[in-house]
Amino acid sequence: MESIQIEIRTGAYYDSIVLMQLQQELASLPQILDSGVVMGTPTNKELLAQSGLLLKQAENAKGDDLIIAVKASSEESAKHALSQVDNFLNRKRSVSGQDYSPKSIETAISMLPSAQWVLVSVPGKHAADVSREALRFHRHVFLYSDNVTLEEEKSLKEEAIQKGLLVMGPDCGTAIIQGIGLGFANKIRKGNIGVVAASGTGLQTITSRIHQKGAGISHAIGTGGRDLSEEIGAITARQGLSLLQKDPQTQVIVFISKPPGAKVAQSLIHIAKNLGKPVVINFLGYPCPTSSIENVYFTNTLEKTVQKAVELSQNLPKTTACSYDLKGFHPEQKYLRGLFSGGTLGYEALFFLRDYLPCISSNMSIPGIQSLKQVSVSQGHTVIDLGADEFMVGRLHPMINQDTRLRRILQEARDPECAMLLLDVVLGYGAHNDPASELAPAIVQAKELAKSNGRRLDVVAMLIGTDEDPQSLQKQEKQLLSSGAVVFKSSEEASCYAASLTASLSKKEIGLPAMNLEILNTPFAAINVGIQSFSDSLIAQNAASIHLDWKPPCSGNERLKNLLKKMK
Amino acid sequence: MESIQIEIRTGAYYDSIVLMQLQQELASLPQILDSGVVMGTPTNKELLAQSGLLLKQAENAKGDDLIIAVKASSEESAKHALSQVDNFLNRKRSVSGQDYSPKSIETAISMLPSAQWVLVSVPGKHAADVSREALRFHRHVFLYSDNVTLEEEKSLKEEAIQKGLLVMGPDCGTAIIQGIGLGFANKIRKGNIGVVAASGTGLQTITSRIHQKGAGISHAIGTGGRDLSEEIGAITARQGLSLLQKDPQTQVIVFISKPPGAKVAQSLIHIAKNLGKPVVINFLGYPCPTSSIENVYFTNTLEKTVQKAVELSQNLPKTTACSYDLKGFHPEQKYLRGLFSGGTLGYEALFFLRDYLPCISSNMSIPGIQSLKQVSVSQGHTVIDLGADEFMVGRLHPMINQDTRLRRILQEARDPECAMLLLDVVLGYGAHNDPASELAPAIVQAKELAKSNGRRLDVVAMLIGTDEDPQSLQKQEKQLLSSGAVVFKSSEEASCYAASLTASLSKKEIGLPAMNLEILNTPFAAINVGIQSFSDSLIAQNAASIHLDWKPPCSGNERLKNLLKKMK
Repeated sequence: MESIQIEIRTGAYYDSIVLMQLQQELASLPQILDSGVVMGTPTNKELLAQSGLLLKQAENAKGDDLIIAVKASSEESAKHALSQVDNFLNRKRSVSGQDYSPKSIETAISMLPSAQWVLVSVPGKHAADVSREALRFHRHVFLYSDNVTLEEEKSLKEEAIQKGLLVMGPDCGTAIIQGIGLGFANKIRKGNIGVVAASGTGLQTITSRIHQKGAGISHAIGTGGRDLSEEIGAITARQGLSLLQKDPQTQVIVFISKPPGAKVAQSLIHIAKNLGKPVVINFLGYPCPTSSIENVYFTNTLEKTVQKAVELSQNLPKTTACSYDLKGFHPEQKYLRGLFSGGTLGYEALFFLRDYLPCISSNMSIPGIQSLKQVSVSQGHTVIDLGADEFMVGRLHPMINQDTRLRRILQEARDPECAMLLLDVVLGYGAHNDPASELAPAIVQAKELAKSNGRRLDVVAMLIGTDEDPQSLQKQEKQLLSSGAVVFKSSEEASCYAASLTASLSKKEIGLPAMNLEILNTPFAAINVGIQSFSDSLIAQNAASIHLDWKPPCSGNERLKNLLKKMK
Repeated sequence: MESIQIEIRTGAYYDSIVLMQLQQELASLPQILDSGVVMGTPTNKELLAQSGLLLKQAENAKGDDLIIAVKASSEESAKHALSQVDNFLNRKRSVSGQDYSPKSIETAISMLPSAQWVLVSVPGKHAADVSREALRFHRHVFLYSDNVTLEEEKSLKEEAIQKGLLVMGPDCGTAIIQGIGLGFANKIRKGNIGVVAASGTGLQTITSRIHQKGAGISHAIGTGGRDLSEEIGAITARQGLSLLQKDPQTQVIVFISKPPGAKVAQSLIHIAKNLGKPVVINFLGYPCPTSSIENVYFTNTLEKTVQKAVELSQNLPKTTACSYDLKGFHPEQKYLRGLFSGGTLGYEALFFLRDYLPCISSNMSIPGIQSLKQVSVSQGHTVIDLGADEFMVGRLHPMINQDTRLRRILQEARDPECAMLLLDVVLGYGAHNDPASELAPAIVQAKELAKSNGRRLDVVAMLIGTDEDPQSLQKQEKQLLSSGAVVFKSSEEASCYAASLTASLSKKEIGLPAMNLEILNTPFAAINVGIQSFSDSLIAQNAASIHLDWKPPCSGNERLKNLLKKMK
């Protein structure tokens, strides 16, 4: 008769490789139908139940308890299998290629002083402590472990950046440094594409496809999936970009991540624009309306990212800085002011602008755009929808009544920091019967006002309408042109031109963290703490590696460990 | 000496055109330097202050109070200007082309019974009442007014859809029906492109650019900016799509909106896929990874939307339904199950899948994807990241330990509703040394299990790795192929193939509201309530229109109005 037998072991630590092997070993014993060896977390118990291996006695097991379950064709066989567990565990001191396994990072470093890296893949609750020790010995950390808290990640990374060290992770599955794969990594041809990735299988997929398409990789730096959150602020990604910028082997940079926080995204795009190398950005799920801004190319699938990177790597674009004639602008002039009568036109403009300009304010709400404190006063880069509800009480729409906008044009011209006005002019039935007849004189007056104060004020207009509209498109265009405005009929061209010219007025402070290129130049050597196969992989790739014989403090007995901590 | 004089009038209603004209009139009087005529809302007072026209006495004015301010070169001139206000207001009974202006919708309808439309542009707080009256007389409503609450919008639209009527708006600035522009609208060539737009200047920009590029418009239906919110559920947009689907003049449909609620977006894309006509969708700021799915094309700027629509209109694609061989699937089989070892691969897959398949559940979090109740049991379409933290306590990553996934493959095969498995197989150092050797037998077993129950189970694998990886890409591919899996090396191709085949298994219930095409076929005629120039525009376009001499109840005296309401 079929029988399920379960044993629960409390408070002991087992390596997860050993648990996997134990499960396989049990399953291979005679008359055993199935086996399960898991820690007693809710998810694990759910999975055991799905396999029909969860008995009542195990339902109350805790996350720290090891559940060993076997299903056999007889009770006797099941019990016999369980009786073999200790035999197996005693036998299972995983055989290492090393003659001697050190027990501490300190000893390991004394054995392999050239090791700049410590690979950490111990269980999550111990991972921060091990990483902190590595930083104490001034080593870079590849932190594979998951289940590490955000607070611990932040504190580790803040310590690391102060010391000029990298903490890739937590939950960083992969990286390629000098052609050596860390953690999970494919064998990739060397080449001129560098990668920064807050995404493990994203990095593997991109590097594999780059290889398949005949191109290659200089270095691929993992950051861990949460690095680009507002909380962490992309510390590791910034360090990675800083390294790849300096690295002479890297000629094209690929930067991928799940969608970062909106502010982080903006500041990273700003950094990317100033790296002086082509950068392909894929923030999976981040809507980039433009396909490129200067040296930065946006893609939204892994496949398209690979295509663009390979194309660039084989045909390096000349990095020509945008060359606008900026004569006449005063150094104080930095900001763009968008004054829109059309909500959607303003809204679309914000999507373009936010990838060109930092810190934009508006009375429209999109991610990454600040809310304007006072709609009557611009602050920094500002885009206003003058047709928003708050403007419309007892007042006709700005497409009919231009009074508010005409006043605002002059108000902006008086602001010594304003350099660029972006306007929409929308024709058609129902609208003002000759909008340019009012706008053109205001533009002339605004430009003169700026000029008389030693400034230059540019005005860009997007003109929306047809040749058959009652106002006549041609007549409107002529009036606007003669006022000195630059006129586009495509909203996209107007926004991108105005944004790009304004962006070129600002000094390019990018604030990349200082990083020493040595990390990419000295031969790779590492100390491995956790999953032994990661050390074996390094050795298979002809890199030096020492595997630590790590045990959790107090053999994983939490109560004892906490007691000891308190006594310190 | 310069002087500012202010008068405040409480509790009276003035048409906003009259207020604009009053302000212009005052400004044109002798010795007047500036003037402002606004309702006393916070924003308006802010704007007055910016123009230096706000005195202390007006600071406490309320939103219902009219502030009249003049600045003159002498106190005498300022006071004289204010003394002219009543003269002007009495003179200003705006001259209409009509011999007689009716005072109620009922009278107007008796004068122009063919009017299917009522255009409403009265102040927001009265707009819902006027619209409700129009619906009572079984007329479609073009609701230009803003400052209408979401609750009122919902109640109006729910009443309208029951009666087969449209409520375009509130805050609907524009529409084109049978070539006649409503509200603000450009003069656009007739053509084969129909538009549904939750965006006023978006609609104007797109139709203008379509005209400029030599193509034309059948009808353009506005919905108001909030129609695609979760609260309203795209009632008007669905009606609009239903009309354009039936309309024989419309051969290409453009659908634009600010980003809709995630669930609304999905259901609209599902509808679009089943309209039987090419549809270009631009949900400004909505990240669509694919550029097209069957007959639906995604764009993300107004300009690209126009380009795609014009291209399609001039070269109509043959609407070939995707023709997969679906032999062997049981009618109950509907669902895709994605079992991923790589988080990013699963995450990217969700972005593809959500545009193909409705109601996907996952343990990963993206907008529009439901949270999986129990990770151990799939529900409907399901994508699982088996490397997520909850699976990883005491267990090796699924790229090393495939146990959970192997069991899950068989579990899904036993589910009579499961039709498709989507898997990633990631090679490289550190990973399982021969994953296909375990996966292939499980796939064979799963397919046999399904077959023995009268079902067909398809398996699609995305295989990530290089020819130099320790596992050998070729060897892995061969094993997977021989198990009967379909293998792709591009993650994008794998997801799109699996999603598209699965989608074709489901019956295409699209649930479009029933709409009578008459609205697009009978000559356009309207009753206009509010801004008179909208009626003048209709007449200029040779459409029949009656302008109502509308006054708010109790001449805008709110207290009296509320009193009367209570007495009813």
